[in-house]
Amino acid sequence: MKKLQRASSKKSQTIDSQLLIELCQIHAPSGEEGPVKDFLLRYIKKESNNWKQKPQIIQGEEFQDCLILKFGKPRTAIFAHMDTVGFTVRYFNQLLSIGSPDADTETKLVGRDSLGEIECELEYDKENHAFYKFGRTIERGTSLTYKILFHESKDYIESAYLDNRLGIYNALKVAETLKDGLIIFSCWEEHGGGAVGYLADYIYKKWKVRQALISDITWVSDGVDHGKGVAISLRDRNLPRKTFVEKIIHIAKKYQIDHQLEVEGMGSSDGGELQKSPVPFDWCFVGAPEQHAHTPHEKVHKHDIITMIDLYNCLMKEL
Amino acid sequence: MKKLQRASSKKSQTIDSQLLIELCQIHAPSGEEGPVKDFLLRYIKKESNNWKQKPQIIQGEEFQDCLILKFGKPRTAIFAHMDTVGFTVRYFNQLLSIGSPDADTETKLVGRDSLGEIECELEYDKENHAFYKFGRTIERGTSLTYKILFHESKDYIESAYLDNRLGIYNALKVAETLKDGLIIFSCWEEHGGGAVGYLADYIYKKWKVRQALISDITWVSDGVDHGKGVAISLRDRNLPRKTFVEKIIHIAKKYQIDHQLEVEGMGSSDGGELQKSPVPFDWCFVGAPEQHAHTPHEKVHKHDIITMIDLYNCLMKEL
Amino acid sequence: MKKLQRASSKKSQTIDSQLLIELCQIHAPSGEEGPVKDFLLRYIKKESNNWKQKPQIIQGEEFQDCLILKFGKPRTAIFAHMDTVGFTVRYFNQLLSIGSPDADTETKLVGRDSLGEIECELEYDKENHAFYKFGRTIERGTSLTYKILFHESKDYIESAYLDNRLGIYNALKVAETLKDGLIIFSCWEEHGGGAVGYLADYIYKKWKVRQALISDITWVSDGVDHGKGVAISLRDRNLPRKTFVEKIIHIAKKYQIDHQLEVEGMGSSDGGELQKSPVPFDWCFVGAPEQHAHTPHEKVHKHDIITMIDLYNCLMKEL
Repeated sequence: MKKLQRASSKKSQTIDSQLLIELCQIHAPSGEEGPVKDFLLRYIKKESNNWKQKPQIIQGEEFQDCLILKFGKPRTAIFAHMDTVGFTVRYFNQLLSIGSPDADTETKLVGRDSLGEIECELEYDKENHAFYKFGRTIERGTSLTYKILFHESKDYIESAYLDNRLGIYNALKVAETLKDGLIIFSCWEEHGGGAVGYLADYIYKKWKVRQALISDITWVSDGVDHGKGVAISLRDRNLPRKTFVEKIIHIAKKYQIDHQLEVEGMGSSDGGELQKSPVPFDWCFVGAPEQHAHTPHEKVHKHDIITMIDLYNCLMKEL
Repeated sequence: MKKLQRASSKKSQTIDSQLLIELCQIHAPSGEEGPVKDFLLRYIKKESNNWKQKPQIIQGEEFQDCLILKFGKPRTAIFAHMDTVGFTVRYFNQLLSIGSPDADTETKLVGRDSLGEIECELEYDKENHAFYKFGRTIERGTSLTYKILFHESKDYIESAYLDNRLGIYNALKVAETLKDGLIIFSCWEEHGGGAVGYLADYIYKKWKVRQALISDITWVSDGVDHGKGVAISLRDRNLPRKTFVEKIIHIAKKYQIDHQLEVEGMGSSDGGELQKSPVPFDWCFVGAPEQHAHTPHEKVHKHDIITMIDLYNCLMKEL
Repeated sequence: MKKLQRASSKKSQTIDSQLLIELCQIHAPSGEEGPVKDFLLRYIKKESNNWKQKPQIIQGEEFQDCLILKFGKPRTAIFAHMDTVGFTVRYFNQLLSIGSPDADTETKLVGRDSLGEIECELEYDKENHAFYKFGRTIERGTSLTYKILFHESKDYIESAYLDNRLGIYNALKVAETLKDGLIIFSCWEEHGGGAVGYLADYIYKKWKVRQALISDITWVSDGVDHGKGVAISLRDRNLPRKTFVEKIIHIAKKYQIDHQLEVEGMGSSDGGELQKSPVPFDWCFVGAPEQHAHTPHEKVHKHDIITMIDLYNCLMKEL
């Protein structure tokens, strides 16, 4: 089985940048995840012909804009959120945050209202309130997201919204060879949640699945570096059950996959929602670290993406 | 159908002040909503003879002090919370907040303990801690609410607890002609919630209802004025699903009902609880704006109440 | 029945210090409650032979590390959390809090990693960040808890983790004579919760139980003293339903059990989780007050422990 892993590792050494760019460019801040769902449905319809197994696709109004892929006899679910941070237009030229965006003045923001396409600039006043600068008034409630400037070098990828389009990318790559498992594309992660509760309830009642991996992007910090492998998070603001996290570390070691152990006191994820949901989920955040989180130029090392996919492939087999 | 709406609008031009006063005067801070429930049961028993349709009344210990009215084949639920802000007597003459009351010193507070009726005065020390001034010690845990001073002018109504007795008033007016729908009177909205989760679970499992309108009172602000019509809230601290909010705006436009679009970054409601509950609810806050929120003299324009009722009548038909 | 109560009161005048020391010494911060569960399973297996009734023991992966004891036909559930506050080792010699520990510099902390047993010292820098001082590096993610220094005097017991090993102790003493009821040992109470939701859901669906007593430790304050009897909490950050709390006070008075009424604006417990869970629970916090909460030397008066057990015995019969 170790052989198998190395083969797969080799195969995934290249990042499918085209897919990642397309994912990053979809305008879908929290509450407006529909376009990502539509993209995924088209992508899966086409690509799943080449997958080892075609998943059952579960969707509908009772899942709002979420999407569930079911492969074989699932024991573990991968959660990848579809939404991003951004801004909502308030009154006059005021902007409110969606999630916690972190951008400099003059950052280019894009969106669309009934008068047409928008590309405007971000500004701040002295009290750090956000505003837009644009040739006309933008309609109330219009959402704006960062304009995508995707940059790839030998080792790094840099773009807005690697959080969490890379988490989705990871899930799609794992899907190619997945035998048994669930892949869940969730909503509202950046802004207080609201979907993971009913998704968890559904999959627990339907298939008794109560193990979850959070396919999301974390932070480069004083203990987690670029290029040293996928991060396994032992805790953030929430504390997952220790015995489950230890199983994951054990599997990473067994398959000799480069990884880093993260220990944080802040930050949350779909894992935090699972923790608080009235379903007995064990969960662990497993994801590549990035620099410049929630800015227009998030930066991730390719080795950390590759080891992330490798580790998920192993975990979905072993857990 | 537009004709129908205009007729109903005409009919509701007058506010039933007597009913509203009675509602405002009920002492029922969060955790003690029983008296509002009892009032509603008496009112509905008597008045529903004149309604187009008698609702099924659902109540009992498993709903604590909440109340559900079921009309026909429900597709959408109206949520109106029964509780208000207020104070709890702590030790000595100390007061703790229930929700976030906002009252000046010398405000009259009323309540009752085993020694009898209480009418006392609110005081603050230099650190802004609240106290009561009264001729005797009040028993620990006694709740106090604002004394009601109801004032009606040609255009405005002013009173404590229009938030949310006006939301209840709206629901009762909509009930008069409602064909299909649920009306839900909820608890604890002002103090962290606790009832909406099980109410949502119940109505979703029982009737597959997953659309909700939050019948509650919002704020006059730099973008929302008195007298310009009911506010449709595009967001507050929580982000409802955009596609649902857009449906509501569409219906308001179609029926030419005066309305204002609200966009806020703070504040929450029963909608926030629905968002976080493990049930896939679409929700939107639709309510008249008020000045002086959570003070003893909340102020609402009558036109905003009338358009609120008009819009709810249309929404309950169309959604 | 009052006679019965007094007899039981007499019987419980002595504290079983040996059991309490053993409970306090178990290393089980939030997320690592397994060792308490294991201790309880061994204890119950042995001791329940002497109980009036042997309970049904409900456990398994779908309850994570939680444990349910079912006696007869349950109407009310006792919740006692198993976890404690503590620290997680981060990078270098940094420590992160588990819950909200409150300890002075040089406090002895204990734990274990793959290199062996740990007994180290707590330190703070100028910005009040916590660190450990130890002869070697401790592995990332290792948890540390206070070293137990148990002290018993004529009237008091002093130790780390009386919160909540005393709540467990109370539950075990009540178990000795319990006829109908549930005893639930929960997880994560000190760090954001995560188990009470599914436990509440389970017991409500299985046995329609929706009354809960929170067997936990509260604070000595300006209104609650040492030695004046068990505290019945009318509110903390959360507001339980007033009618339920009043039932409990009524029973305490009827059985003439020394008690104090607590009214707080802060603090939470498993009761807060019940309040927010999508199940219609009535709950009340009933527990002995302690000084020096969350420090290594929590201090409780024996009379308050004895009246706590007495009151629980009565409540489980009467509610």
